[in-house]
Amino acid sequence: MVDILHRVGVRTSSPEKVYDALTTIDGLAGWWTDETQGSGEVGGRLEFRFPPVGGFDMEVLETVPDKRVSWRVVDGPEEWIGTTVEWDLRQDGDWTIVLFRHAGWAEPVEFMHHCSTKWATFLLSMKAYVETGRGAPFPDDVRVTVNWD
Amino acid sequence: MVDILHRVGVRTSSPEKVYDALTTIDGLAGWWTDETQGSGEVGGRLEFRFPPVGGFDMEVLETVPDKRVSWRVVDGPEEWIGTTVEWDLRQDGDWTIVLFRHAGWAEPVEFMHHCSTKWATFLLSMKAYVETGRGAPFPDDVRVTVNWD
Repeated sequence: MVDILHRVGVRTSSPEKVYDALTTIDGLAGWWTDETQGSGEVGGRLEFRFPPVGGFDMEVLETVPDKRVSWRVVDGPEEWIGTTVEWDLRQDGDWTIVLFRHAGWAEPVEFMHHCSTKWATFLLSMKAYVETGRGAPFPDDVRVTVNWD
Repeated sequence: MVDILHRVGVRTSSPEKVYDALTTIDGLAGWWTDETQGSGEVGGRLEFRFPPVGGFDMEVLETVPDKRVSWRVVDGPEEWIGTTVEWDLRQDGDWTIVLFRHAGWAEPVEFMHHCSTKWATFLLSMKAYVETGRGAPFPDDVRVTVNWD
């Protein structure tokens, strides 16, 4: 099992806005993909779409206000199914520190390399969304390569 | 042992410019840090500096033209020493696909999360440098957080 890890610092006086960006449909649509539907509550299902390629369905496992959010991938690319996406937040002065882990990949396949880079761009999009009100969600996302975008 | 993985596609008709960006001082200074010195030849030592924080010294392990470059970290942050940084290139039409691996971290510490995100920004800087002639090397690099930059 191998994991994708990332960390960003978001300049904001409390973790609340970051937590909202991870648990509300408007928030998620503000940095990951315009086409976000579902519920960010525990037990809910979040549907993220990136037409025409496809998308991801997540079951929400945990939501601890201002502290932690985790999802399990229940539909999407074969390599993603059963993996977990985990967000841990902590406040450090004027910054919310976000630790990210996309855990449980079976093998370090080439697609995992791609997803790691792409996650970094989306975390920076989330940082910009919270700090400035404007992220770079799909279809305005940062392109990192020729296929899989 | 845990690894940082990334993948970018660079729009260029052959892998030569990417290879040069990884093996020449001018190339490396064009996307990682302005303060790059040393030799990118096998057995050489590359010195990357990010004042006032510090930097990394790498021993060049392999240089296979247009295919592969690898380095071993011989000086820098404790967590980096002994790890390897590996670059594999292949051409796919008008794109050079770059697979990146920073391998051999002892533990998935918080600093590793940060370095993973930061590597993504530097790979995108390398992509921009090769595609447009203008990267975002330190001190003009993308800031991802409050400390460690």
